[in-house]
Amino acid sequence: ALPLALIAGPCQLESRDHAFEVATALKEICARVGIGLVFKTSFDKANRTSASAQRGIGLKAALPIFAEIRDKLGLPVLTDVHEIDQCAEVAQAVDVLQIPAFLSRQTDLLIAAAKTGKAVNVKKGQFLAPWDMKNVIEKITSAGNPNVLVTERGASFGYNTLVSDMRALPILKDMGKPVIFDATHSVQQPGGQGTSSGGQREFVPVLARAAVAVGVAGVFIETHPDPDKAPSDGPNMIPLKDMEKLLGDLVAFDKLAKKTS
Amino acid sequence: ALPLALIAGPCQLESRDHAFEVATALKEICARVGIGLVFKTSFDKANRTSASAQRGIGLKAALPIFAEIRDKLGLPVLTDVHEIDQCAEVAQAVDVLQIPAFLSRQTDLLIAAAKTGKAVNVKKGQFLAPWDMKNVIEKITSAGNPNVLVTERGASFGYNTLVSDMRALPILKDMGKPVIFDATHSVQQPGGQGTSSGGQREFVPVLARAAVAVGVAGVFIETHPDPDKAPSDGPNMIPLKDMEKLLGDLVAFDKLAKKTS
Amino acid sequence: ALPLALIAGPCQLESRDHAFEVATALKEICARVGIGLVFKTSFDKANRTSASAQRGIGLKAALPIFAEIRDKLGLPVLTDVHEIDQCAEVAQAVDVLQIPAFLSRQTDLLIAAAKTGKAVNVKKGQFLAPWDMKNVIEKITSAGNPNVLVTERGASFGYNTLVSDMRALPILKDMGKPVIFDATHSVQQPGGQGTSSGGQREFVPVLARAAVAVGVAGVFIETHPDPDKAPSDGPNMIPLKDMEKLLGDLVAFDKLAKKTS
Amino acid sequence: ALPLALIAGPCQLESRDHAFEVATALKEICARVGIGLVFKTSFDKANRTSASAQRGIGLKAALPIFAEIRDKLGLPVLTDVHEIDQCAEVAQAVDVLQIPAFLSRQTDLLIAAAKTGKAVNVKKGQFLAPWDMKNVIEKITSAGNPNVLVTERGASFGYNTLVSDMRALPILKDMGKPVIFDATHSVQQPGGQGTSSGGQREFVPVLARAAVAVGVAGVFIETHPDPDKAPSDGPNMIPLKDMEKLLGDLVAFDKLAKKTS
Repeated sequence: ALPLALIAGPCQLESRDHAFEVATALKEICARVGIGLVFKTSFDKANRTSASAQRGIGLKAALPIFAEIRDKLGLPVLTDVHEIDQCAEVAQAVDVLQIPAFLSRQTDLLIAAAKTGKAVNVKKGQFLAPWDMKNVIEKITSAGNPNVLVTERGASFGYNTLVSDMRALPILKDMGKPVIFDATHSVQQPGGQGTSSGGQREFVPVLARAAVAVGVAGVFIETHPDPDKAPSDGPNMIPLKDMEKLLGDLVAFDKLAKKTS
Repeated sequence: ALPLALIAGPCQLESRDHAFEVATALKEICARVGIGLVFKTSFDKANRTSASAQRGIGLKAALPIFAEIRDKLGLPVLTDVHEIDQCAEVAQAVDVLQIPAFLSRQTDLLIAAAKTGKAVNVKKGQFLAPWDMKNVIEKITSAGNPNVLVTERGASFGYNTLVSDMRALPILKDMGKPVIFDATHSVQQPGGQGTSSGGQREFVPVLARAAVAVGVAGVFIETHPDPDKAPSDGPNMIPLKDMEKLLGDLVAFDKLAKKTS
Repeated sequence: ALPLALIAGPCQLESRDHAFEVATALKEICARVGIGLVFKTSFDKANRTSASAQRGIGLKAALPIFAEIRDKLGLPVLTDVHEIDQCAEVAQAVDVLQIPAFLSRQTDLLIAAAKTGKAVNVKKGQFLAPWDMKNVIEKITSAGNPNVLVTERGASFGYNTLVSDMRALPILKDMGKPVIFDATHSVQQPGGQGTSSGGQREFVPVLARAAVAVGVAGVFIETHPDPDKAPSDGPNMIPLKDMEKLLGDLVAFDKLAKKTS
Repeated sequence: ALPLALIAGPCQLESRDHAFEVATALKEICARVGIGLVFKTSFDKANRTSASAQRGIGLKAALPIFAEIRDKLGLPVLTDVHEIDQCAEVAQAVDVLQIPAFLSRQTDLLIAAAKTGKAVNVKKGQFLAPWDMKNVIEKITSAGNPNVLVTERGASFGYNTLVSDMRALPILKDMGKPVIFDATHSVQQPGGQGTSSGGQREFVPVLARAAVAVGVAGVFIETHPDPDKAPSDGPNMIPLKDMEKLLGDLVAFDKLAKKTS
């Protein structure tokens, strides 16, 4: 099995400078730790808990920044799409299109993303069983695109809570595609703060270690220089200064996991 | 409180003649039973479990049929939208735009539906708590449209199962909008048949009676002359021939519920 | 079907006078409303959230009070047992032995209760599916006692929350025994207040109406003259003064339910 | 932190010879792997799904076997108790009394076990949140016994399914007692085979690795020379021949986990 990869970045693309600050820092950390990096950030948060929440800088402003990050930092870039019409345009500026969990059953969006020819990372809906993802993957591959990643990010567990079922990881792996564990959104408390979602940052390393020990292709961890001031997912983002220790640990667990399995 | 209303029809718009057959029969049944009817059918099933499942006749073919049903039968028509771009066009041919449960957090779709000025029936996501719908309703009303209906259709409960929490009905009602109970999708077993969803038709009357006794503005019940041959949601649709008895019972429970509460 | 019956009383047997006050009041209410009453109270709360919580007056002090209530008020009495050794002794003073939900899988306790020859009301464990109760009932009937009642009281739903699945009622009914809906414990929030369980009294009528509309043999509702001062289950007990209106409504729903089904 | 310990043995004490066969084999395996062993087996399965299921050889027959295993093999022995009266007697023959998950809220049983002075391993109820165990532990420690172990074994997740929430492990650890992860019962499917519980043996190593990577004091794994012929929990026991590889992997993960945390 290939060594562990990392999908990381700030939840929301706040500005060119902010994105470069985080991407540059992550690139250096990952080089020291020895882990491959895909830079992730969102140009639009299309499903915020509340309509008054901040959504991001938008597609038009984001694409040149994505392109610049790829060019200047040499990093592959991942971002999420929400509309069929966005897929082709976004595909010109990024390496991986991501399908949000709520949209993981929208056939046309999956097919539009597939048809760009870019890799597609599809998040497992909070309302889906692991085995339900087989049909989701087939919607993409039957559109002619075999480059699919599948991301586990928790299942609904009562109200305003998610639970991470580690059994999902080998079930998803058996579908033949790289499996990513999203440690950031797995500790989200959806809608848990009334007009925004809460989160439990302290459990990101806990769930990430568990998932890596079970065996995954990659981890997805959102990070921010100052999470408590971030416009979205602050409660579950890891401070940038804590990433190196966390990633170092995960790389060690990954080596052991891939040696023993 | 107003008397119970009914949103009903075949899950999928199969053809003009099929739609007229069901709508005509329902109109006669509802007249005899004394319950107001909104005719519901879908022009596209955009989130089928599997990509190879039948999706429907499409928007272009459906709109004239919707218009004809309104004209000739005098019935208000409801259908669901999946894309922002569909809202304005669909709004010309129907009375109520419905937001599917999976899409209940997509801010732009909610706002686009709101801006048509038509009534918007938003289904509560399987991954949402009842109180989370407050923010969803506000996304619509803050776009200038106060005509919102809220539909309960079950919450995720383990894998491939939904549970109907009857406490949700008064919680939703306190938000000041008419509450609909969708008895058809509440008995769905999502993904429960591998490449399609299962269902438990026998529990439709059970949950519908419970909800009406608690107190709702309306019930949503999909029906078909021959459910086992229907292209979607067959396992949880009620045979058309059983609707009159069921609706008669529900009207009796509704009268009692609204007298005693 | 027989008309709706009621199992009611204060959660905990606080004193002889308190029990008589509540039992007398309930007897008068039930006579006016036209509903059969079984008086319920507990001599010991053996599974309190915290060891420092008040447990009750104990078996020895309770039995004469139970006997006196039966004699003087002519009411059948129900209480719960927690130990095999208690069954025979308690059976001499009451009409129905109740098995707590947490103990619904303890084979020897079920059999000891069965062997007293008294009716046995077994509560469905929060961790059991409705169909799992078939084996529980058989543990009792195979010990020679056909007089079993089965009580629905909610299923675990995430942490510190229960959900009432109304589908459970017809599933349990198909097992051929009277089905009781416990509206008091179904609105419990187990452990929800740190060192005690919380509750949502306002949903007792909601769930009770739903269950009666679906069709049950009886309802179980704990009540207290001053619930906020009760030593246990205060947050989910109904004030005694509100019982008559609630029971009157439930009787009306029951008549309709048994006429239409 | 101390190195990982193992609680293991056959679910049910089938006979003296069977127990010695498994205990001897486990002792040798654990010596080779370098992991401390507590031998576990049950003299009575007091909460079988069905009354007709095999329950075990009973207390009287089991105690001499427990004593002999301790004497001849030098292994500490753990067994579970179900009745208050059993605690003192069982305590004479074993080192650790275990409280079954269904009984984890029974105050008197917890206190009776505590008063023996032996270590008490209390399993977290399937219906409890991790933080609810604080009160359970205090029931034992306030009876004068600080030697408590806490075991995670899954939480109810819909019907007939458990889910292992890895966040529970650090939450339990913060209560200051050794935390055990029961990989055998966490993969149980309670009642999942109609008159017996199912299980998913293939996920035992998955969940065990995850838990050890998160950090636990010990793992609990039931094993059997021929699980498919075992009288209980066969579907989720690990074949004895597979234990050495599994334990070797877990020891490696434990060393890494305790070095990096």
